[in-house]
Amino acid sequence: MSLPADSPALPDFSRGHNGLLPAIAQDADNGDVLMLAWMNETAWRQTLETGKATYFSRSRNSIWCKGETSGHVQEVVEARIDCDADTILLRVRQAGAACHDGYRSCFYRTLSADSKVQINAEVLVDPDSVYKK
Amino acid sequence: MSLPADSPALPDFSRGHNGLLPAIAQDADNGDVLMLAWMNETAWRQTLETGKATYFSRSRNSIWCKGETSGHVQEVVEARIDCDADTILLRVRQAGAACHDGYRSCFYRTLSADSKVQINAEVLVDPDSVYKK
Repeated sequence: MSLPADSPALPDFSRGHNGLLPAIAQDADNGDVLMLAWMNETAWRQTLETGKATYFSRSRNSIWCKGETSGHVQEVVEARIDCDADTILLRVRQAGAACHDGYRSCFYRTLSADSKVQINAEVLVDPDSVYKK
Repeated sequence: MSLPADSPALPDFSRGHNGLLPAIAQDADNGDVLMLAWMNETAWRQTLETGKATYFSRSRNSIWCKGETSGHVQEVVEARIDCDADTILLRVRQAGAACHDGYRSCFYRTLSADSKVQINAEVLVDPDSVYKK
């Protein structure tokens, strides 16, 4: 599966359901996993061209530049793909909060074995002030 | 979307294609994203019960305890879910290499805007010695 270092390579969008691959956004500075969203080839190309993380919204069925409403954009520092080229990892600089609930990361809930939930972070921004004004 | 801290919660497998949700494995010690695989509810429950990351292999169409062949198990330190409960984040202690290509992380390829590839890591183990003996 390995490719020579100088070969061209792209994510293999044919491997995704409906041509969508999972894309993980990771904080380039502290390594926190911020969110997972989905990309089609258009979103991927737009991400590379603009340097801003751009996804495909499955609920809205459209391309979505993260932060276009909230201002909470993700500046892409680096893009990686996994060994079988069906998952994308973006290392980003996140403005504000990645999560629509106002947390910096969408993964603000920790589950224990008995399915109890603990909130592992503080709310960073009031979601109402960002999304409902 | 937020839940009270004491409420039970599980990943919502009904939101995944074929009941499968993406599960990210992250190194609990240094924050490296190691791999992404898929979980159904059985894999999720087995992961919580055994403390070892267990996925659903789409190619083999079966439950797969990571490391059962290679010995490269992932001891789960913590499980998180995202805001809409359709992505799982496992913080793990990885034995050996997560990647079948012998790298510690599957994300050993960095792509530049012109789609050139750079290998960003060293091979940790010889894959032939692990998977083909």
